[in-house]
Amino acid sequence: MSTGRKQVVRWNSRGKARRERDELAIEEPLEIRVDTRCVSVTMRTPRHDEELAAGFLFTEALIHKRNDIARVRQNSRNRSGNVVDVFLSPGLSVDLERLRRNVFTSSSCGLCGKTSIDSVHQHFSPIGSIRTKIPAELLVQLPSKMRAAQQTFERTGGLHAAALFTTDGKLVVLREDIGRHNAVDKVIGFGLLNDRLPFDHHVLVVSGRASFEILQKALAARIAIVCAVSAPSSLAVEFARRGGMTLVGFIRDGRMNVYAGEKRIGFSRE
Amino acid sequence: MSTGRKQVVRWNSRGKARRERDELAIEEPLEIRVDTRCVSVTMRTPRHDEELAAGFLFTEALIHKRNDIARVRQNSRNRSGNVVDVFLSPGLSVDLERLRRNVFTSSSCGLCGKTSIDSVHQHFSPIGSIRTKIPAELLVQLPSKMRAAQQTFERTGGLHAAALFTTDGKLVVLREDIGRHNAVDKVIGFGLLNDRLPFDHHVLVVSGRASFEILQKALAARIAIVCAVSAPSSLAVEFARRGGMTLVGFIRDGRMNVYAGEKRIGFSRE
Repeated sequence: MSTGRKQVVRWNSRGKARRERDELAIEEPLEIRVDTRCVSVTMRTPRHDEELAAGFLFTEALIHKRNDIARVRQNSRNRSGNVVDVFLSPGLSVDLERLRRNVFTSSSCGLCGKTSIDSVHQHFSPIGSIRTKIPAELLVQLPSKMRAAQQTFERTGGLHAAALFTTDGKLVVLREDIGRHNAVDKVIGFGLLNDRLPFDHHVLVVSGRASFEILQKALAARIAIVCAVSAPSSLAVEFARRGGMTLVGFIRDGRMNVYAGEKRIGFSRE
Repeated sequence: MSTGRKQVVRWNSRGKARRERDELAIEEPLEIRVDTRCVSVTMRTPRHDEELAAGFLFTEALIHKRNDIARVRQNSRNRSGNVVDVFLSPGLSVDLERLRRNVFTSSSCGLCGKTSIDSVHQHFSPIGSIRTKIPAELLVQLPSKMRAAQQTFERTGGLHAAALFTTDGKLVVLREDIGRHNAVDKVIGFGLLNDRLPFDHHVLVVSGRASFEILQKALAARIAIVCAVSAPSSLAVEFARRGGMTLVGFIRDGRMNVYAGEKRIGFSRE
């Protein structure tokens, strides 16, 4: 259940107020527990919570492979449906203090974008070679393919999406969430739980903007090509360049801006 | 400095690739220190960092009034410009453990949207009476007034905005940030540092969507009317209703949807 209905008064420019029912994106807190200890509470849209939990732990570098997880499932004793339990493989433990210290954005010696990028690269090395390539004509079609596959955006206008495509344009998985970073964690959690990582011959498309955090998560899954429908931030561009990734922004209506790694895109008619 | 310039390859639907410079929204980490201890690291767009720090502490209920802060200023020893120091008034201390426990979204006994709303109301009581009122015709003009006042959105497409208006439509303060919640914290921090809280006869307008978190922050500053250019979430609507607030969504092109507290809006031509 990712949407719910509420009463609304619609008012239009001719001064007409009409009472109707409107469909809204659901937002609820999710508590992620690792071996019964709470490690995170995040606001999210229900569905695919196991993927979200697995993806979150993986992109935060707390776990590193499918087998690090023994079991992941909804906590059945909590009737809200908003608690997910992750049980690690025997003998494994995670450094929960790391989450508290905000590893990827802080540092003991000054604090700048460069420091943040370096701290991510301690856990996820840059993507070196080019290898993956996709024609520009194919790439610009992916956002409309994503939109066509979205189940709830049209109804609510309130959900972000993240979609993973192969480099020949086939949709692998699409996830929606009120938080863009959650949608990306769900896509990567899908890959982890189904043992399909790394996604190194794939393209990630996200609705909205591209921030540092989205690029960091993509790098964790070794996704070399990231496309955002809206603007990237300055740090996202810096991150992509130093991480050897391809970053495309404003990809819509048959146009796009390539901010990094243009060699992975085939501009045939240049 | 809230924008920077980067090289970009623009590709259009006629297959033309052109190399240009593009203006992007700056994203950098900000460390907020209270009495020299780090309490938060958040990605934000530089400028108005003192307001952001003050607003964050206030909306998280760690401080409660202007005089709780003795001094707030950029940390001059850190050359990145990304550390802000808050010094509390003598004798005052804040419960930093609270931040770690995620007070507003978690609880020891189950976890649902209702629990989250209750935990906010422990710190910020619901808004009771109606008092503030604004005509519908005036309200629907506020988003375009906000857009006109935004300095950088048009150039980058990458910044969220939060703007505070009086109920006769005058702009009080506008702040931009890569994170919508940061833009709201800056607006409220402006109010706190200039001793202008509560904002109980004001309207808050935010670009994009309205989440639980935005409503929580507005309630902290006693803002009774919140308008979002895009969709609200289910929990934002629930929060507004239980908090006695007015919530408007999809306010654009002379139309709007009123999800809660319609009595504060004058529908004269009904």
